[in-house]
Order: sequence, then C-alpha cells, then structure tokens
Amino acid sequence: MNTIELRPPYLIFLGSETHPTYTKTGAGLVEWRRELCRGQLSLIDDGVDLGLPRMSVQEAAAAGVRSLVVGAARVGGDIPDEWMDTLEQAASLGMDIVAGLHVSLAATPRLREAAQRSGARLLDVRKCPAGLPVGSGRKRSGKRVLMVGTDCAVGKKYTALALERDMHRRGLNADFRASGQTGIMIAGCGLPLDAVVSDFLSGAAELLSPANSDDHWDVIEGQGSMFHPGYAAVSLGLLLGSQPDAFVVCHEAGRERISGWDDFPLPTIEQVIERTVALGSLTNPAIACVGVSINSSSLGADERDSYLAELSRRLGLPCVDPLRGGTDALIERLLQTPAASCTDIHSPGGRQS
Amino acid sequence: MNTIELRPPYLIFLGSETHPTYTKTGAGLVEWRRELCRGQLSLIDDGVDLGLPRMSVQEAAAAGVRSLVVGAARVGGDIPDEWMDTLEQAASLGMDIVAGLHVSLAATPRLREAAQRSGARLLDVRKCPAGLPVGSGRKRSGKRVLMVGTDCAVGKKYTALALERDMHRRGLNADFRASGQTGIMIAGCGLPLDAVVSDFLSGAAELLSPANSDDHWDVIEGQGSMFHPGYAAVSLGLLLGSQPDAFVVCHEAGRERISGWDDFPLPTIEQVIERTVALGSLTNPAIACVGVSINSSSLGADERDSYLAELSRRLGLPCVDPLRGGTDALIERLLQTPAASCTDIHSPGGRQS
Repeated sequence: MNTIELRPPYLIFLGSETHPTYTKTGAGLVEWRRELCRGQLSLIDDGVDLGLPRMSVQEAAAAGVRSLVVGAARVGGDIPDEWMDTLEQAASLGMDIVAGLHVSLAATPRLREAAQRSGARLLDVRKCPAGLPVGSGRKRSGKRVLMVGTDCAVGKKYTALALERDMHRRGLNADFRASGQTGIMIAGCGLPLDAVVSDFLSGAAELLSPANSDDHWDVIEGQGSMFHPGYAAVSLGLLLGSQPDAFVVCHEAGRERISGWDDFPLPTIEQVIERTVALGSLTNPAIACVGVSINSSSLGADERDSYLAELSRRLGLPCVDPLRGGTDALIERLLQTPAASCTDIHSPGGRQS
Repeated sequence: MNTIELRPPYLIFLGSETHPTYTKTGAGLVEWRRELCRGQLSLIDDGVDLGLPRMSVQEAAAAGVRSLVVGAARVGGDIPDEWMDTLEQAASLGMDIVAGLHVSLAATPRLREAAQRSGARLLDVRKCPAGLPVGSGRKRSGKRVLMVGTDCAVGKKYTALALERDMHRRGLNADFRASGQTGIMIAGCGLPLDAVVSDFLSGAAELLSPANSDDHWDVIEGQGSMFHPGYAAVSLGLLLGSQPDAFVVCHEAGRERISGWDDFPLPTIEQVIERTVALGSLTNPAIACVGVSINSSSLGADERDSYLAELSRRLGLPCVDPLRGGTDALIERLLQTPAASCTDIHSPGGRQS
C-alpha cells in the first residue's frame, strides 16, 4: 500500500515545550496508542510531562525504540537549532525521525546525512507518497464509516478514535484510518489527504481504506466540511473515495460560524446529512447517517444532557459526546445498517496486513 | 499573480509528428491565438503543417520569438532524444521552453544548463507555482461565468474560448481563464488546477479570476464533472473558488456513461444544473445557469437542430453548439443575469494587467 507507515515503538520528543497546547500530538499518541510509546524526551527539566518514562536517545535505542516522533509543534513549524543534536543522534542510531513540521526533515543536511549512514528514515507526515492513483469508483469489500464535519476542528479525529476503541471493546473488527497528520502519527499509517495533488484525491482516499474482509469496519477520519469555502473539495474527494456505508456528523455545540471564515454560517446538521447523502451516493448508494458526535465542552453537564436528548429527538438519530459517555449508541446504529447485515463478532484489534 | 505566464510570440515545435491527433495543443494555439504564433518547426519534411511559416530556431530568434512551445504530445509524455538538440538550441538562444509533458523540463540537465546560461525559463504547464493560498471565500469584484461539464472532454475549454471570442466581437470586456494545461498554453497564463495540492484548490481558483472591473467577465475553463468518481473534487474546488455568477453546462450529445468509468452513468443536464446551484451558492448565492453547450459532432445537421431545439424547450435555456453557430444565445442570456445588470459595452479585447 502506498501509505505512510511508522515503525513502533516510539520515543516521544517534546523539545523545550512547557505548555500542553503545543504537545497535543504527543498527548494524542499517549492517549490512543500508549502501548506503542516506550518513553519521552524533554530538553528541559520542567517541560511538559506526558507520563511516560523519561529516556535519553541512547536509553531509547537500548530499549528497542525504532522511531523518534516529534510530539511538539512550534509556531511556524520550523526545526529549532536546539533540537538538532537530539534528532541527529537518534537518526545516527538508526531511529526513524517522524514529524509533521512545515520544514522538510530531508531538506536538513545534518539529518539527511545521519539517516543515510544508519539507514533510518526521515518521515514527513505532511508529505504524500508518490504514485497515487486516480479514483476508480470501484466498489471494495468490507464496510466503512466516515466522520463528516460541520466545520474543521469539531472532533472528527477524536470521534473516529473513540469509535475504534469502543468497537474493539465489543470485539468488532475495526481500524481507524488516518487522513491527517496527527491521525497518521497516532494510527502509525495513513495519508495526509490535504497534501494530495487534486487529481489523486479520491484515489488516495480509496487507498486509505482498501478492500477488506466482509466483517471489517474502516473508521475513517474526516477532513474539513462540505460547506467550507476553503476545504470543501478535500471533504468531497475523501467522501467519494471512501465509499462509506455509514457516516457520523461531527459538530461542536454552540459553534455558529465557520471558524476563521466568519462570513460563512455553519450549516445545520440536517443540511450536512442531506448533502453527504446526495454526494456520497455517487459511489455508495446505500450511504446513511448513523448519528451525531458532539463536542460539548462549552456546555455544563445538565445542559449537555438536554442538548443531546433534544438533538436526538429532532433528528431521530443517536447523538453522543464521545468524551463523556462513549460511542456505544453510534455503534448500535452502525450494526443495524443494511451494509452491516453480515457483521460477525471478531477478535479485538484485528487488522488486515 | 501566482499563475504561470508565457512570453509571446511563439515558435510552435511539432517534433516528428505526422498525425494531427498528437499536435492538438499546437493546433489550438493557432486556432485561438494565431496572432501570437510567429512560426512552426517540424523535424521532418512531411510532418504536421499548422499553416504557420516554417522556421529554424535561429530564424525564430531573429524574428523575435520569445518562447518555443511544444505543440506535440507523445504517448507517455517523455522528451524524445531527437527533440533535444532543438530544445537545447532554443534555450541557449534565450527562448523559454514551454511544455506540458510528464517529464519535467528542468530535470533534463542539458536543458537546465542551457537555460541557466541564457536566462531562459523552462515552463512546465503541468506544474503549479508555489505559494498558493487557501480559499478565502471573499467576494471579488467583476463577473464570472464557469463552464461545468457532464463529464471530462465534452467541450468545456472550446466553449469558454468560443465565448471569449464572441464576447470580444460584441465589444464586451472578457478574458478566458485557463485551468488546464492546454488552456494555459492558449491563454498564455493560468493554473493547472488538477495539479494543485488539495488544500489550496479553491485558493488557486480564486487567484485564477482575481478582482476586476465591474463590467469585466472572466470566462473560466471548467474541469472534470461534479458527478465524476475520480475528479469531482477538482470540479468542486474550482466552482467554490470561481464564485461564478453564471455557468454553462457542457455536454456531448449521445454520451451516456462517464468516459473510462463505464459503471457510472452520465448525469442528466438537469442534475448538473441542480447540483451546481446547490454547491456553488455557498460562495455566490446568485449563481444561475445561462445555457447549455453541446458537442454535437455525433449528430447530422438535421438531427442537431432538433436536438438543440428540443433540449432548449425542455430546459427553458439557450442550447448551442459553439462550433456550429457560435455562442450568441448564451451571451444574450449572460447579459440578462442580475449580476450583469451593470454591464457596459467596452472596447474589445480589454484585459486587466
């Protein structure tokens, strides 16, 4: 498969960050893939602590770490000078360096040379592999559920990861499929769809959830929103290539305008459902909405319950906040979709090679 | 502006081609921009003849030619060895080399070195300039009409060029805006939208038809089709970024399936109109269809007339074949659109710098 693939276990590199806002990628890895994280490395004593064992590069190498993952993001996305010695040392010892910075790792001579000598890879999760195909539109085996947003940054990745976790707990055969850089770091593989050349968008989305066994669910991270003046094309390419049997609308309670595009009102959830069905039925006529995932962080506990209940009544669909109560109601509905009629209970964590 | 810009006048290079099928780009330049074409150069005596004066590279340089445009396409898109001496000589004499081949001109050491010495540019019209913005969705001044297809290769570029020609004849202020490689060669500028990284698709489309005077029409070449399983995302990004006041549906009479994607039936023209209005109204709520352009080459003359009349009756819109009868009926309708209420008659060929 033409996707990016990381080699675990990981050492999470936190630079000199002191504020959790800038180490969300590292925190996401610890939250969702704790078993793959061997240790953390901060350049300062009072830096962010993700709760992992502290390790030097040498200690990590001795512990079998295969990748140093940059879990800190700097405004501007460059590689600070103070990071260089650590990254170069890791590459020299054969660890892959994994990052989603604006600057290309391979464009840094010290890193390139160290990696060439040791055989380590410099993996830029913002960059797409070459050789992507044009979308074929051909139906693939297996089942797919796509996260669809009313906007960017409403919880699509979180919802998909929570669905994967909760499906595994129930013994279902499911895999999170990452379409953005943070998701790729967490999943260990994927394609950054926003970085794909337009002609190959739906082809890349097809690669992201390849043919699979009939009982297998791909739980696909969404991108953007079909109502976004800047990013709607990415959302459509992902929708058409994913051929989802089911989708979950993701929304942040209280958000009324497209974030950063204030002239554009947020679509209603009904509009998102209608448009996703209209457009998605091109490559999967059976597409259906199975529920709504709400980021309700702006609401109090009482308010949240009545908000979700009222929304559920209005739409006739399960509505959950995955951070508070999980996604079981969505999964129940997912298993009732016609596409899911052949679903079998399967060993947890099943993953097609 | 961040678009590709060619420097006329041109020498059209035809290689050793003997069949017009493979010199369509050169023929398009002669058909639509004859005044910019100073001569043609074929490597063989009985090669394709576009009706231009035959010139050697030296003669072209003496005649003030500033760009050698590769007007021949080879299957596979590489640069044949037999072309090299000619291209290198032209680059050495300071002529830009313009091509839309799969192989990058700049990746060819002989051409790169010749161009570096003389200051010539190697312009690859398949490649996008760097630094494209994300689409803002902000309304721009001026008016825009976009070609929208039922499929690829149904006459969108031809219709846009015919509209520009016929609008200029009527003294209207209009510019063809090229979104694909052949169109860019003809227009002398533009952006190959299918080669843009997805995140910047509608931003690139915004650059393609920048703010302009109130009486100015951008006549924008369309891409793909909103109902195409491989390319719909490109079509949507172009639609949202173009913010068209008006659109023309382009269709080939008799085509019933998406060409090359035979499992997918062609949408009806009504479906294309409905979806284009639904999606396009995000960035221009006034969007309206002004008519249909039919490639009727599969029909006889009698059949064509009744086909167009019947279609026009069915849709309540002007329906033309621009190759046979021009686009005046579309222009009449265009000038009646609400957005066009402030249209003034203007000197022909007006072009904003």
